[in-house]
Amino acid sequence: MVIHIAYDGSDFHGWQIQPGQPTIQGLLQAALSKLEGFTVSVQGSGRTDAGVHALNQVASFQLRNPIPLENLLKAVNRLLPRSIRALAVREVPTKFHARHSAVAKTYEYRIYRGDICPPFKSRCTYALSSRLNETSMVTAARHFVGEHDFRAFAAAGGEEKQSTVRIIYSSEFCRNGDQLHYKVRGTGFLYHMVRNIVGTLIAVGRGNLTPGDIPNLLRQKNRSAIGPTAPPQGLFLVNVEYEDPNIHADVF
Amino acid sequence: MVIHIAYDGSDFHGWQIQPGQPTIQGLLQAALSKLEGFTVSVQGSGRTDAGVHALNQVASFQLRNPIPLENLLKAVNRLLPRSIRALAVREVPTKFHARHSAVAKTYEYRIYRGDICPPFKSRCTYALSSRLNETSMVTAARHFVGEHDFRAFAAAGGEEKQSTVRIIYSSEFCRNGDQLHYKVRGTGFLYHMVRNIVGTLIAVGRGNLTPGDIPNLLRQKNRSAIGPTAPPQGLFLVNVEYEDPNIHADVF
Repeated sequence: MVIHIAYDGSDFHGWQIQPGQPTIQGLLQAALSKLEGFTVSVQGSGRTDAGVHALNQVASFQLRNPIPLENLLKAVNRLLPRSIRALAVREVPTKFHARHSAVAKTYEYRIYRGDICPPFKSRCTYALSSRLNETSMVTAARHFVGEHDFRAFAAAGGEEKQSTVRIIYSSEFCRNGDQLHYKVRGTGFLYHMVRNIVGTLIAVGRGNLTPGDIPNLLRQKNRSAIGPTAPPQGLFLVNVEYEDPNIHADVF
Repeated sequence: MVIHIAYDGSDFHGWQIQPGQPTIQGLLQAALSKLEGFTVSVQGSGRTDAGVHALNQVASFQLRNPIPLENLLKAVNRLLPRSIRALAVREVPTKFHARHSAVAKTYEYRIYRGDICPPFKSRCTYALSSRLNETSMVTAARHFVGEHDFRAFAAAGGEEKQSTVRIIYSSEFCRNGDQLHYKVRGTGFLYHMVRNIVGTLIAVGRGNLTPGDIPNLLRQKNRSAIGPTAPPQGLFLVNVEYEDPNIHADVF
């Protein structure tokens, strides 16, 4: 089975289950386990950090007792807090795995640029009213497109032995009313990679780096040269793509 | 002085200061007192309940040490949590009082009508996907316009000796995409009055009351005949009006 979920990550300690902490995986497993009467294990497409949101996170799991899909969706939503919503549930071949089967992911980072960030937006955007050269940021963002070793943009202490090469299909900054939206789509992302890219783009916007520095940062693989990690509340996991086009959800 | 503020009321125990509880008045007084170095007392235009929001709440206070207005606004916002934002600060004649000088108030109540309420909206809307006759609700809402004794719509245990007569200038329900918006403007509102009106309109939508019952409910002044109080998260204090047209703020 596959489940698509959206969440406001503000009140959770991220996706991954942790004893004694409210996490999205933990709450989803608890809801499904309660419905099934035995422990259901849920595999997400990937972790999201504490405070990071999702418009369409995807998870796979197996059930022993078949439940009509429409009922399952409603029952899960009754058990989850309102800040986590199941959008769709579908049957999939048992070989499907939310993480291993994923072929692309899209993230979006939102920066609020007005003087006073509306209280209803402050959980879901990074309020940054200081001066930024947005044109430089737009140019810099494009330099991430392509196949690169993103070692410099991974959090320290990550899984060093695994490949840090990723392909970025698109990487774009744009103005959207009072907000700046950075949208990036690629084969996959290392731990903290999107927030480190955004922090580096902000360093470009502030004039501490130039757009032309980006290719060098990627080549040099030097963590200390990039910008500081951007805070979590601006980040959204927007979509996870699979070869099977039926595995998708209509998002809000 | 007058200050205009917006807040997401979800995390607060309402407007009114209470020992040991986070309240909007309490946090605002603490911020102003810290800036001034002595206790500043803040008078709001009226209380909002726990969980109720404001797009433009108005409060008055006196300062001993003059601070340039632009600096005061920034300093207050630095001291307040991000879920409370000061929108504007202005000098006003000392006789101005946020509650006594108010001539009209506007509230809005938002009901989410889709099957699955987006997690980013669930703090600021009442999710109600069950069947409602919206046409009846629109008709019923209009019956509140005019001068009425709203005793039936006041919370039990209110200030019984004071007049419960209020003038409603406009009272309208309308569809706005996936949401129903009820907007009401009047001279003033009794404790729980807007939420009780909305609960009664929902009872009309469900078919438990008819639009024609509203004039009778107002005449009979019988609390037990109205609908249940609607939950707080859908309610916004939208605006407070004063005779002086300069006392206003641009809201989000």
